[in-house]
Amino acid sequence: MTGEIKYLLGEEDMPKQWYNIMADFKNPPSPVIHPGTMQPVGPADLAPLFPQEIILQEVSQERYIDIPKPVRNIYRQWRPSPLYRARRLEEALDTPAKIYYKYEGVSPAGSHKPNTAIAQAFYNKVEGVKRLTTETGAGQWGSSLSLAGAFFGLEVEVFMVKVSYQQKPYRRAFMETFGATVHASPSEITNAGRAVLAQNPNSTGSLGIAISEAVERAVQRDDTKYSLGSVLNHVLMHQTIIGLEAIKQLEMAGDYPDIVVGCTGGGSNFGGIAFPFIGEMLRGGKKVDVIAVEPAACPSITRGKYAYDFGDTGKMTPLVKMHTLGSAFVPPGFHAGGLRYHGMAPLVSQLVEEGYIKGVAYHQTQCFAAGVQFGRAEGILPAPEANHAVKGAIDAALQCKREGKKKTILFNLCGHGNFDMQAYADYAAGKLKDEDYNQQELAMALAGLPKMPVSA
Amino acid sequence: MTGEIKYLLGEEDMPKQWYNIMADFKNPPSPVIHPGTMQPVGPADLAPLFPQEIILQEVSQERYIDIPKPVRNIYRQWRPSPLYRARRLEEALDTPAKIYYKYEGVSPAGSHKPNTAIAQAFYNKVEGVKRLTTETGAGQWGSSLSLAGAFFGLEVEVFMVKVSYQQKPYRRAFMETFGATVHASPSEITNAGRAVLAQNPNSTGSLGIAISEAVERAVQRDDTKYSLGSVLNHVLMHQTIIGLEAIKQLEMAGDYPDIVVGCTGGGSNFGGIAFPFIGEMLRGGKKVDVIAVEPAACPSITRGKYAYDFGDTGKMTPLVKMHTLGSAFVPPGFHAGGLRYHGMAPLVSQLVEEGYIKGVAYHQTQCFAAGVQFGRAEGILPAPEANHAVKGAIDAALQCKREGKKKTILFNLCGHGNFDMQAYADYAAGKLKDEDYNQQELAMALAGLPKMPVSA
Repeated sequence: MTGEIKYLLGEEDMPKQWYNIMADFKNPPSPVIHPGTMQPVGPADLAPLFPQEIILQEVSQERYIDIPKPVRNIYRQWRPSPLYRARRLEEALDTPAKIYYKYEGVSPAGSHKPNTAIAQAFYNKVEGVKRLTTETGAGQWGSSLSLAGAFFGLEVEVFMVKVSYQQKPYRRAFMETFGATVHASPSEITNAGRAVLAQNPNSTGSLGIAISEAVERAVQRDDTKYSLGSVLNHVLMHQTIIGLEAIKQLEMAGDYPDIVVGCTGGGSNFGGIAFPFIGEMLRGGKKVDVIAVEPAACPSITRGKYAYDFGDTGKMTPLVKMHTLGSAFVPPGFHAGGLRYHGMAPLVSQLVEEGYIKGVAYHQTQCFAAGVQFGRAEGILPAPEANHAVKGAIDAALQCKREGKKKTILFNLCGHGNFDMQAYADYAAGKLKDEDYNQQELAMALAGLPKMPVSA
Repeated sequence: MTGEIKYLLGEEDMPKQWYNIMADFKNPPSPVIHPGTMQPVGPADLAPLFPQEIILQEVSQERYIDIPKPVRNIYRQWRPSPLYRARRLEEALDTPAKIYYKYEGVSPAGSHKPNTAIAQAFYNKVEGVKRLTTETGAGQWGSSLSLAGAFFGLEVEVFMVKVSYQQKPYRRAFMETFGATVHASPSEITNAGRAVLAQNPNSTGSLGIAISEAVERAVQRDDTKYSLGSVLNHVLMHQTIIGLEAIKQLEMAGDYPDIVVGCTGGGSNFGGIAFPFIGEMLRGGKKVDVIAVEPAACPSITRGKYAYDFGDTGKMTPLVKMHTLGSAFVPPGFHAGGLRYHGMAPLVSQLVEEGYIKGVAYHQTQCFAAGVQFGRAEGILPAPEANHAVKGAIDAALQCKREGKKKTILFNLCGHGNFDMQAYADYAAGKLKDEDYNQQELAMALAGLPKMPVSA
């Protein structure tokens, strides 16, 4: 029985700074545009939503930004997270490739999300905020922010997409146990929610509606701000501790990847593992193949347009330039709820355009098959989202086998599947479908992208 | 925000031997008795059920037994497990006591159970066994043995108490994903199961019936053995790696406990944390208060009799001397399924009699309240079983506060509650009851204990 090799950093080797990839960009990032004025948004536009330090981080050009000590004090409960050499999986695949995975499921919420939830809660706390609002789909993000709120004594109000609220009572129980208030969205407590319910009393909700509700609640009260779990620059930066640790751990192993793989929904766990390696490339370092794995049913990178679009379905947010399927696009229901977003982080999108990231798309049953194979070899059942990264890594390893190449593959196992066993039960029972998106709906959603001035 | 302090051993410091407390016993353990002959059982009696090495370990007088290298190779995927100083909980309680907890939820199955599942699978594998049978209630043990079977290429057949099979489809999905076959017990595939169903077609099953089914299947086939997840000597010994690591980690902290707390069902996680400290006492070392926390609804230590009894309801197993509520005793339904056993490990029972262990009993709502308090401070939601240990530790810390004593408390957090969110949801909704056992039923079960020869 081959053992895994675990590379564990000492706490003293935990990074003390996040990495801000904007400092190494060859081209400046596209500005965020106010949909009313069509002018770039300024700090004042964002102040009702975010604390000052977060706004500064969103536009910072500093290469490294200090992780505050109270944040590090909490990180080190589960960080540095382990890096594993997946030797049993390598044996099962009979590949000459070396496969490493960084495991973020060791956090108390079971995913990478607390890396930014803790940081965001901290910055809000020090600026006197009393309450955070947010939205959540499947519940990973809401759970993480609830946890962070409990640590810092902040009230947390979560708008949970109604269909998930009803289908995932355990995620709701998790949030409520940590003291959060969870509303099924659309709710009766916001104008946005009431407007939707007036039109359709049976609405099961969407992430777009939930965002509108959370934003509305935050704007209404001076002591309340809004918190987002992916897409934005500062969120991706908070996740770079994953890749920074991985670089140190691979050094311990005397190794460096040829291929880096992550799954992409809004882009935060992917940016977390990939940006430090892309940063090395941008500064003239070793060329690495960086693969962003997305669901074939919601393929923003591989089938979307690189264009300005709204972050929410309700068209209330500023406009950002990103790979998008159109904010009106509604993907079919599949189990990786964390990957059901119409857009992609602007930073990831720009790096795709510049050739540093390659997108690939898989259907969910392929990904579950990969997850089960990984689980039986490695003992960990990945979250449905993470199964996409597993599938990407396994395919890369099998490619190495066909070509007889001893490449080094690194992927991010961003969370465990303990809260997703219904999906595994459905998969085992042959009930999972590989539903595709509706081509006509996608065409319509893309045709509905906002008209921008020529200069953008 | 106070940070936790995490004491992490390097892999090279992971213990290479288990500790066998029988070597330090002042009085010999009471023999296991064959219920037919009323004579002590010998290795030949156990050979149809267990591999030779396990039988030897069950009666060994060696103080330390080597952990085979292939077992250590798998252990080190998650071991040494972390020891935490619970500083945020200390602050929340405003206690002068120091509280440490050893966290076994980092294993792939989320509890301490893989510590023995991996070892048992290994010994069976090297002796040519092809298939393991076992029973499971809530599913923690069945999950762990399924995982171990996947690692070693052994078939695993689990008899899962029917009521749990129906109520906990996610645990079943977990086992099946790792390739195990899971039967609802009572089943139609054994004589024991058919006999129960003939009498009561609607039987929801019991651990006692499931044991009978698993044993019957193992005995029928030469290539099949049986595996038990608690109670027996070798199982508790495999868990001592928990306490052995804790001693080393507390050394790093420059500390040693005054109080050691664990929850007790069959006794395996409790023995795992406590035996290395009790061993120090037996060899003349520092006096430690060792507290075994059990459910008030199934209180074998605090309300049971120290007597010979069967391990199963069907009276098919050998007789062991232990604290028992009578093998006919059926506890009321409460959420800590892993603590719903009528007996207690013989080794734990003897140490209770000799004054080295003190039992205390709590009702489940007290324990959930403690678990929620712990979770909000520490970020980890404990399993319902582990909440009993949390409650014991919190009560000890509050006692220190009342007395102004700076004692050091160590407890075992044997597993996380990710698969138990229904229980937390019920607790939050005020639906949890503190049902007590039926006093008359207990008296009858105790009156029905087997009649033994005077010498036993």
